Parts: sequence; C-alpha cells; structure tokens
Amino acid sequence: MQQKIEQRERIYINSGKGQERTRIVIEGVKPELDGGRFSIKRIIGDRIVVEADIFADGHDILSAALLYRKESDTEWIEDPMELLSNDRWRASFVVPRPGRYLYTIEAWPNRFKTWQQDIVRKIEAKQDISVDLLIGAQLIDEASHRASKSDASDMQKWAETLRSSQMSPSTKNKLAMASKLAKVVNNYQNRAFAVTYSKELAVEVDREKARFSSWYEMFPRSCTSRPDLHGTFKDCEKRLPYISEMGFDVLYFPPIHPIGHTNRKGKNNTTTARPSDPGTPWAIGSEEGGHKSIHPQLGTLEDFHHLIGRAQEFGIEIALDLAFQCSPDHPYVREHPEWFRWRPDGTVQYAENPPKKYQDIYPLEFETDNWKELWEELKSIVLFWIAQGVRIFRVDNPHTKPFAFWEWLIVEVKKDYPEVIFLSEAFTRPKIMYHLAKRGFTQSYTYFTWRNVKWELIQYFTELTQSEVREFFHPNLWPNTPDILSDYLRDGGRPAFMTRLVLAATLGANYGIYGPLFELCENRRKDRESEEYLESEKYELKQWDIESHGSLKNFIARINSIRSNNPALQSNLNLHFHAVDNEQLICYSKRTEDLSNVMLVIVNLDYNYKQSGWTNLSTEELGIDSNKIYSVHDLIDGSTYSWQGANNYIELDPHKIPAHIFRVQRPSPGFS
Amino acid sequence: MQQKIEQRERIYINSGKGQERTRIVIEGVKPELDGGRFSIKRIIGDRIVVEADIFADGHDILSAALLYRKESDTEWIEDPMELLSNDRWRASFVVPRPGRYLYTIEAWPNRFKTWQQDIVRKIEAKQDISVDLLIGAQLIDEASHRASKSDASDMQKWAETLRSSQMSPSTKNKLAMASKLAKVVNNYQNRAFAVTYSKELAVEVDREKARFSSWYEMFPRSCTSRPDLHGTFKDCEKRLPYISEMGFDVLYFPPIHPIGHTNRKGKNNTTTARPSDPGTPWAIGSEEGGHKSIHPQLGTLEDFHHLIGRAQEFGIEIALDLAFQCSPDHPYVREHPEWFRWRPDGTVQYAENPPKKYQDIYPLEFETDNWKELWEELKSIVLFWIAQGVRIFRVDNPHTKPFAFWEWLIVEVKKDYPEVIFLSEAFTRPKIMYHLAKRGFTQSYTYFTWRNVKWELIQYFTELTQSEVREFFHPNLWPNTPDILSDYLRDGGRPAFMTRLVLAATLGANYGIYGPLFELCENRRKDRESEEYLESEKYELKQWDIESHGSLKNFIARINSIRSNNPALQSNLNLHFHAVDNEQLICYSKRTEDLSNVMLVIVNLDYNYKQSGWTNLSTEELGIDSNKIYSVHDLIDGSTYSWQGANNYIELDPHKIPAHIFRVQRPSPGFS
Repeated sequence: MQQKIEQRERIYINSGKGQERTRIVIEGVKPELDGGRFSIKRIIGDRIVVEADIFADGHDILSAALLYRKESDTEWIEDPMELLSNDRWRASFVVPRPGRYLYTIEAWPNRFKTWQQDIVRKIEAKQDISVDLLIGAQLIDEASHRASKSDASDMQKWAETLRSSQMSPSTKNKLAMASKLAKVVNNYQNRAFAVTYSKELAVEVDREKARFSSWYEMFPRSCTSRPDLHGTFKDCEKRLPYISEMGFDVLYFPPIHPIGHTNRKGKNNTTTARPSDPGTPWAIGSEEGGHKSIHPQLGTLEDFHHLIGRAQEFGIEIALDLAFQCSPDHPYVREHPEWFRWRPDGTVQYAENPPKKYQDIYPLEFETDNWKELWEELKSIVLFWIAQGVRIFRVDNPHTKPFAFWEWLIVEVKKDYPEVIFLSEAFTRPKIMYHLAKRGFTQSYTYFTWRNVKWELIQYFTELTQSEVREFFHPNLWPNTPDILSDYLRDGGRPAFMTRLVLAATLGANYGIYGPLFELCENRRKDRESEEYLESEKYELKQWDIESHGSLKNFIARINSIRSNNPALQSNLNLHFHAVDNEQLICYSKRTEDLSNVMLVIVNLDYNYKQSGWTNLSTEELGIDSNKIYSVHDLIDGSTYSWQGANNYIELDPHKIPAHIFRVQRPSPGFS
Repeated sequence: MQQKIEQRERIYINSGKGQERTRIVIEGVKPELDGGRFSIKRIIGDRIVVEADIFADGHDILSAALLYRKESDTEWIEDPMELLSNDRWRASFVVPRPGRYLYTIEAWPNRFKTWQQDIVRKIEAKQDISVDLLIGAQLIDEASHRASKSDASDMQKWAETLRSSQMSPSTKNKLAMASKLAKVVNNYQNRAFAVTYSKELAVEVDREKARFSSWYEMFPRSCTSRPDLHGTFKDCEKRLPYISEMGFDVLYFPPIHPIGHTNRKGKNNTTTARPSDPGTPWAIGSEEGGHKSIHPQLGTLEDFHHLIGRAQEFGIEIALDLAFQCSPDHPYVREHPEWFRWRPDGTVQYAENPPKKYQDIYPLEFETDNWKELWEELKSIVLFWIAQGVRIFRVDNPHTKPFAFWEWLIVEVKKDYPEVIFLSEAFTRPKIMYHLAKRGFTQSYTYFTWRNVKWELIQYFTELTQSEVREFFHPNLWPNTPDILSDYLRDGGRPAFMTRLVLAATLGANYGIYGPLFELCENRRKDRESEEYLESEKYELKQWDIESHGSLKNFIARINSIRSNNPALQSNLNLHFHAVDNEQLICYSKRTEDLSNVMLVIVNLDYNYKQSGWTNLSTEELGIDSNKIYSVHDLIDGSTYSWQGANNYIELDPHKIPAHIFRVQRPSPGFS
C-alpha cells in the first residue's frame, strides 16, 4: 500500500509538543548523518533503505510508516514499514529524479490489531470474551467514521454483529478473527496518538555521472602543433577524437580566464617571468577581464560554445575550474578593494603558507563586512558558466574558503540546476576533506595519489566504501595532477603508470588522469623534495607528442572500455578485498547487487619484479561454489583461466601487463 | 588556566545565526548521547573527558575551550582544550556534586599565534618581515584594549618596539618570537569570530551508591518467628544485624501499603483466596488507604521511621517499591475513575497479557484526559516517601507506563533531591530497557538473571561495559527475584547459588539477592514452565530458618567484604575477559585506573563437576610483566599461588568453592 498524504499537524517526538500522552519512541534511524545535520548522497534510481528502532511502553502492537517526498513537492508519500526483529523496522523508497528528497517516520499504536491479537488468544484459551466483543465493536464503529461510504457500511454491520445477542458465539468469534475485517479496519486507523520522528532527513540525489565518470585533465594552451604557439579551443576540438578514443567522458580544463601580469611566475615557478612566459592559469584576471572572461589567446566565448557542442558529439562534457582567487590585476581588486585583506603598508596581502609565497595571487577575504555581495558575485560566476553550457566544476582549494559559503553556493545552484557536479580539490586533512563533502560537494579528490602499498590501499578503501563515509562521499581517484607527480610514478616509470591506472580505474568508479603527461609516462621532477613536474606546463607553453610510441593510450582505452561494459565497476558499494599470500599483490572484487556482473582485479604493486602468489578468495562474495570449477576471463589480454575454489595461482610481470581484470564466469546452473 | 566566564552572546554553529563569517567546525563530540538528546551518567568525583573534532578552513591556528557548569549555576567555567592529532581536541572536568552539569565547546581562530608561527618561519627563511612586524604590532594593540592595566602597558610598549625604526632588527625579531609576548597576548584573545558548539550536553551526576551498592530484598511480613504471625517493621529491625553482617547496604521491601480484598489471589497464585490469605503486596490499596499508607499489620508510620533510623545505624538504606497500579479497592478508583480504562460493560479494565489475567490489579490509564493531575499525584507519592526519609526506589514495571512520564518524574524529583536513586525493573525487550535508563533511571535490572554460559556472559557484559551503554546504564545484577527462580538455580542447587552469587557480585558493582530464599538455596518451583517459586511468599505468610546449617550467609558475607575492600570491584569500567581453554571456566579482571587494585576472578560454571584448564591472561591488562613471577591471593579461601606470565593452571570444584577471587600482587619494583 502506498498512499499520498497531505502535510498535517503532527506530534514530533522530543519536540516537547503534546508528547505527554504519546508512548512511542523512534530512534536509531539509519541512514542519518550527524544527527540529520547533513544530507546523504544517492544517484537517481537508487533505492534508499530506511531503518529505525520503534517501540512503546506497554503491550500495544504498533504500526509505522516511512514518509518521503521530493523537497519541492508539498505532499508526503507514505509506505508501511515492516517489523524485522528486536524492535527494528524497515521500509525503502526509490529516488527517480535529481534533487533533494526528504524522509521521516511516523508510528502509532494499532489498537485494532492489538485487540484482535488479544481476542484470538482468549478464544484459544476458551475465556469469556463477551466484553471484548463489545470493545471490538466500539473500535470498528470509531474507525468507520474515517472510512469510505461502502467500507463504512460494511464496518457498521460487523460492529452490529459483534454486539448482537441474536448471533451465535461461533459466528461472532469467526468474525472477530477474520482477516478481511482486519484488512478493512486497518485502512482507517486512529492516528490520534501517532508520533513523527523529530527530524526530516535529506537525500541529495545526483545524476549517474556523480558516481561513475572518467576524467581527462588537459591544458588547452598545450594542444598545439608547434611549441611556440599558444593552443586554442579550436586546437582542443581536434584533440577530442583522441580523448574520446581513450574512453573519457569528462574533459577538465584548468582556468581559461585572462592571466595577470603583476608578479607573474616564470618557468619552473621562478619569481621573474620573461615577457614570453604565459603565467599560471590560476593567477586569474587582468585588464582583459576576470572570472567571466576567456583568455583571448584561447579564443572567444563563441569558440568555447562550439567546443562544448563538439565535445557533446563525442559524449564528452567540459568541466571548468572554479579558482576563487585573483591576480593583482583582476578587476575585483580595483572595484572591490574591501574583498581583500590590506596590510599596514597599504598593499594587499598575497597568498602565502610561510615560508612559501604566491605573490601573483591575492586570496579573497571572506571575513569582509561586505561578504554578502562577495558571495553573490561568486555565485554569479558559476551561473555565468552554467549559462554557457557547463555542468561540471572542479573547485580549486575549497578548504581555504568558509564551509558555510560552499554549502550556501551549492544549495543555491542546485535548486535550479540539480544536475551540476562539484568536484572538491581539497588535498588537506582528512576531517576537512570529508566535511566539504558533507557540506555539498558532489565528488572529492582523495589520498589515493599517495596510497601505494597493499595495507594502506586496503585500509583507505575500506574506510571510503564500508564506513559511514560511503553515505556522503564520492571519491574521485587521480594518479597524477599538475601539482603532484608522486614518488611511485617518478621511480617506477611505465609499469608504475599502468599499475596506478588500473588501481584508479577499478578501485574508484570515478577517476581521472592529467594528460597527456600521464599516458606519455612523463616522470621527470623539478627536484627531489617537491612533487612538481620538471618544466611544468603550469608556467610555460608545452607541446606533447601524443602519438609517441610508448604512449599508454591503447591500454587506457582498453581499461575504460572494460569500465563501460561492466556495471560492477561503475559503483564502489560492493568493493571487497581478498587475501593473497604476497604483499606485492593486491586482489579485490566488485559486483552488482544481483551478482550478474562480478569483477575480480589483481594488481602487481611491484614495478620492478614479476610477482606470484596464491589467492584466498571469499567465494561467497563472488557467488561461486567453493568446490566447483569456474572460469575467469581477463578483459585486458583476453585470456581465460579455469579456476577452482578459493586458492588459485597468480603471476604478474610488470614489464608485460601488471594486472588482471577478470570477469568471473559462473558456471550455468546445469554445469558441474 | 581555568577561568569563569559570564554567559554571553555566542555564535552557535549550525544554528544559522551569524554563521556566515565563522569558519570553524566543531563536530564528533564525545561523550554525546543520541545527538545530545539524553544526559550521560557519572558519579561524584568522576573526571569527564570531552573530545571533539575542531577545524576551520584555511591555515589559521585555532584555540578551543571546554565550557562547563552545574546547571543551576549561571556562569560557565572554561578550560583550554588541547590538540591531540588529526584535528582531535581534548579537555576534561570533574563533577564534585550530585545533580546536573552542562558542557559545551567554544573555538576561535588564534590570530596572534598564527602570526607568530608565520613570522618565525619567515625569520628562519631570512625573508623580509617589515610589514609582518607592523601587523603584529596591530594585533598586540588590539589585544591590549581587553587587557588589565599593567598588561596593557607592557603590550603597548611591545607594539611600539615592533613598529619602531630606532630598534635593531635583531631586537624586534627576538621580541616577535618571545614566548612571554605570546603568553600575555594569549590571555586577551579576540573572540569576535568564535563559535560555540550548537548543543549544551548534560551529565547526570549521582552519589557513589548509584554505581556501587549491595541490595537485599526481603518481605517484611516474613520476618516473623511464628509461621502464623504477620511480620512487622519491629521484626524487621531484629533482622538488621543479620543483613548487616552479610554486608548489604540497601534493604529493599516489596510494597508496604494496604492490600486489596477484591479478587485477592490465594496460595500459589490461585484466583480464590481463603479469608486468611494475605494477598500480594503489589495489589495496592484498600479502605485502609493507598500508596501513601502503610499496611496496618506491618506497623505505623512511626514504626517505619524508627526502622529507617535503626537501619541507618547499620549502614543500611531502606528502598521502597514504586508500583503504580491499584487494587479495585484503592481509593483512587472511587475518587478518580477517569484514571482507569472503563469497559463497555461498566467495569474497569484489569491488567492482562492474554491469556494471563490479573483481576486483582487495575492499571492506571495514562492516556486519560486528566493525565496532568495523575502525574502530579504520582509525584506526590514519591515526595511523600522522600519526606519519610526514603532515598532509593525500586520501580515496578516502568515499561508499562509512558517514557515521557518517567523522564518528567525523575527530573522533577532530582531537582530538589539529586541523591535519590531509581532502579528500573524492566525485564522487557533490550531497547526498551536501555531507553528507560536514557530517560533517567539511575540503575537497571538486567538479563544477567538468564545469562549462564560463558559466551553469553562475555557477550552481554562486553555490551554493558564497553559499548555506548556504559555512558548511561548502571546495571544491577540479580540472580533471583520473587518472580524469577531460574532453571540454573533450580537444577544446580547450592553450588549454582554460590556460582551465581560470585558472578553477580564481581561482574556487577551493583547487585542484589532476594532473601532469605537465596542464602537458603531455596530452589523449588511451582511448575516446570513458569519461573515462580513453589508456595511463593507473594501469596502467603512465610517464616524462614535463617540460622539453617546450609545457609550461604557466611559465604555471602565474605564476598561482600571482598567487594568493600577492593575498589576495583566497585565499578564496571575496567572489566576485561581473559581466555581459558575450558568452556566451563570463565575468567575476568577488574582494575582501578592506576592499577593499584587488580582483581582476577575465575568461576566454574558447571555445578556438577570439577573443571580445570589453563588461562591465557592479557598480562598488560593486569599490569604484569609477562616474563616475571607474581602472586595471586585468593580472598575467598586465603590461599596464595605463585604464577608466571599468561598461562597458569586452574582447578575448581563446585562442591567445595566454585570460584577464585584473586587479588593480583605485582612484585615490588626491586623484585625480579
């Protein structure tokens, strides 16, 4: 039974309002994040299972209902909850559209059901039930006032029968115990003593891409055919087939806005730039405009529109960078000096993390008295790019702006554009990283970039996928970024790039690479200490030979195609680690809920040596009979192995292919 | 530093009020029960350790303070919190008096500390700090406006020095980094951007007896020298030395009020009573009075006062039974018919749990429109007995009255009498049992009565002492009650009684027995199915031979004396189970926080056979070096064993003494 009900006066437990005569407690509600302060996240089409402890004093049988609605709707939809055991109740609902849904719980004593249970026991014990029949008649009468005309007439007849001195005891007993009677009366329960859970809990529902996406980051200005030329949006269009062939569906650009001149950085992050140095795209703003303008050397707004359209044809969405900071030449500095922090010498405070200095960048001062106008202006930037067709934003350093600002911004934007995705680039302390996701960020960068050995990968991905974190945090895994060339990639070269790619693409339903440096296995660092690339394209124009012989583009294409064809890899919910008796081999599976798609991944973490070992698989997790033979089909190289039970031999050579991505092929039922 | 601060305007996070420019998040606060809905429980003198995740966007160094006060005080006391790691902060406070305390957290960006940290780094990196010195001077100036006169004058001088063009750079650098400067300025921090945690959390602080008590339940009418005589309060006085010698400090009586005549129960719970049958004490009320009257055959109110006084001399408190229900003859039925549920035949609904009927008892109807007057009347009963000197109440079947009523009642009573203890007799479903404790009951009966085998004892006591339950639930362990003679006691006889006594008295800092049936090892049941005693004294006058040869009174006295002399047994917080390689032997330790008292208990759960086995002790838990020799001294029989490390041999004969209660004697530091 599912019925729409109007919002009406309710007694909320713990709210103090009229609770004295209500006897029901609703607690231990799951899912519920931080006492209901934050929404959980789900994807359209997901089924949300809600459980709660519901009980009352005394012996009354209870009824409970799950109430849910899209926040913008005015009417609740109500589904009955089912009692599992130990006072635990459950119901579920599906969220078909993107946006915000609310849910709560209502429970009430079911007087009639209690009465019927008691009278059945009394009849069985052959006790006198004459008064009980009168009580039942009263309950039915009372319910009939809420009933439809035809039901009401039936109910009045039944009440008369129970009261009648003409009817035989056996007729009356039969009626009292009748399931039809129960069913009808149950439709018109007395909810005068109903209580509603004190909170309305929220679900933020995103489109599918929030959970499953493949990102490619690229500097548009490097899409050039000659090293001395500045790449353009038109050049980017020519690169689309290449990106599409590799199987990526999000193309993310660092900031595309005019770049400041004052204190512009030179090659390798030097503080003095030559006139020909282009500057870092994150030093946003010049006399040519700010966050709503396009760097003239990239092209025009029209070019950008054209690029978005072309990308769409390839199934690719363009993601932009939201870096809320300004070069000293940004128009805001002139127009809104109060949005910056001024120093006693009359200069603006530039960004710094002592002893590091970023003199080409002024942070915004969110503690300004004029914060309201600042917030509105920043929102208008997002809306401007939405108007140009952008629906995905990678947000630069969100952890250096107030949480409250992000929460407001994301709610405001998603009110009208629930399909917008915000990726949080918060490479900071773990609690801050998680908190930003709670405040509304759709996806988040993770520590994957620095998790290389088996135990830390298992520990971290268990936390991400098995703890409460799974309720609000969509991880997006990046083996490299323009700021991070890890020790592992630097030292391991090509085998390491393959290993990290497979890990990112199979441990995370969302992942991305920073190319073409990644597929070209670029691993030269500026120095030993920092993770900066040597001659980083953050500070200079570069040109990349994407057709180079050693490129991983075909390997990447294969991996992305495996992701597209196997729904198990499109979510992280059923990630499970299996034992292998070699610390250099990591083994895990992902499966669909119904076991129709089961993937088993084994990766050699050692980029130097061939490693071998024996698995000890949780066969139940794979849907496999531990005694029978089954086959695993490697979707990377096409080979098939015949395996039995939990223990199977594995051998992986990093200088060939450092990983297996098996599809587990369970024998058909007749097979043995 | 500890300082009193006045209640002032604060910015509460998540409250929406002025939070836009605050950057700090306070979350993950512990202890916090159900999002702050319920108080935690502690005992006077306890130290409450409070932890929280506190962080902000950006790089500012934060300061945080724990705020606490007795609820009745108007001023908060404030202690600085310490940053542990991973954004986790901690502070603690002591609760010296019974009653309700509140605590919350405040945090703010510490601008000066941030400035000092940055300038130290810049000086080390030999950077130009001329502007930074001016900023520091500004911060010091600003703080000086909040400072005491003498501090303010120092601070102004320091600020001048930092600004002065006369001073040498090295003088200024030295001053900027000086810890004295930091210390003084730190006392006058700017809290304009401080945030306070959105909740004020509560602690209910009880006197020591809430955590450590030894109960003896007894029917006063059975304290008689001749089986045909009704015992009196005067007879009870004569029994006090006996109870005191056994070491009990709470003497609990079933209801002492007039007993109804209508539908009075006869021997063995039969529905027809002979004129001489006394009726059950729980059928409260007759023409002789109700809940504020004393059954005339027990004595007068004066006799009761005298008994309380005498008991006090023996260090014994009298606990009364709060059974909020009425015999059909109770004055309330006449005076307040609206407090009962009326049936269509004009009779009052008696208590029933079909097919069981309790025609001698009318439950109160808490859903009555006149609930307010009912609640007040019931409160007046408690206050009446408090006025007679009673401070401990055992509450009969609280799970059949509304939770909201209990919460109100207990808060109301403890406002004026914080020393009152309420024991909840809710032998019902686990979540209801726990919920009553959350609503305010001081102590609670448990499932101990039915937990007999090793795994279930370990599982249950781990839940009670290691999970969140420990924050709000003081267990009180009863091997028997007037309603429950368990299978184990029935079948096991004397060895079983000894075993259950040791378990109750050492697993639970609070425990009780129903005597003299317990010490006399009375184990005859009415029938196989029910747990009722044969010829239960609930329905008849009894006389007991307390000097009987087989009595356990000396054994009980020994166990209670061990409890009194060993503080480790007076709390459940450090209960730890140790392995033994025999399922019939259970082994656990309790220790004081500082390891000055370490007790190790081993019990043979098999009442038939001698059992032996090897322990595998967690030596760390016992404060023992796993390689060295130590001795364990059995406080039951006085024997001492020399042990080494984790593995030691145990042998226990149920027909002698089925348990060891060892005091672990660690070697003095010089010993090896």
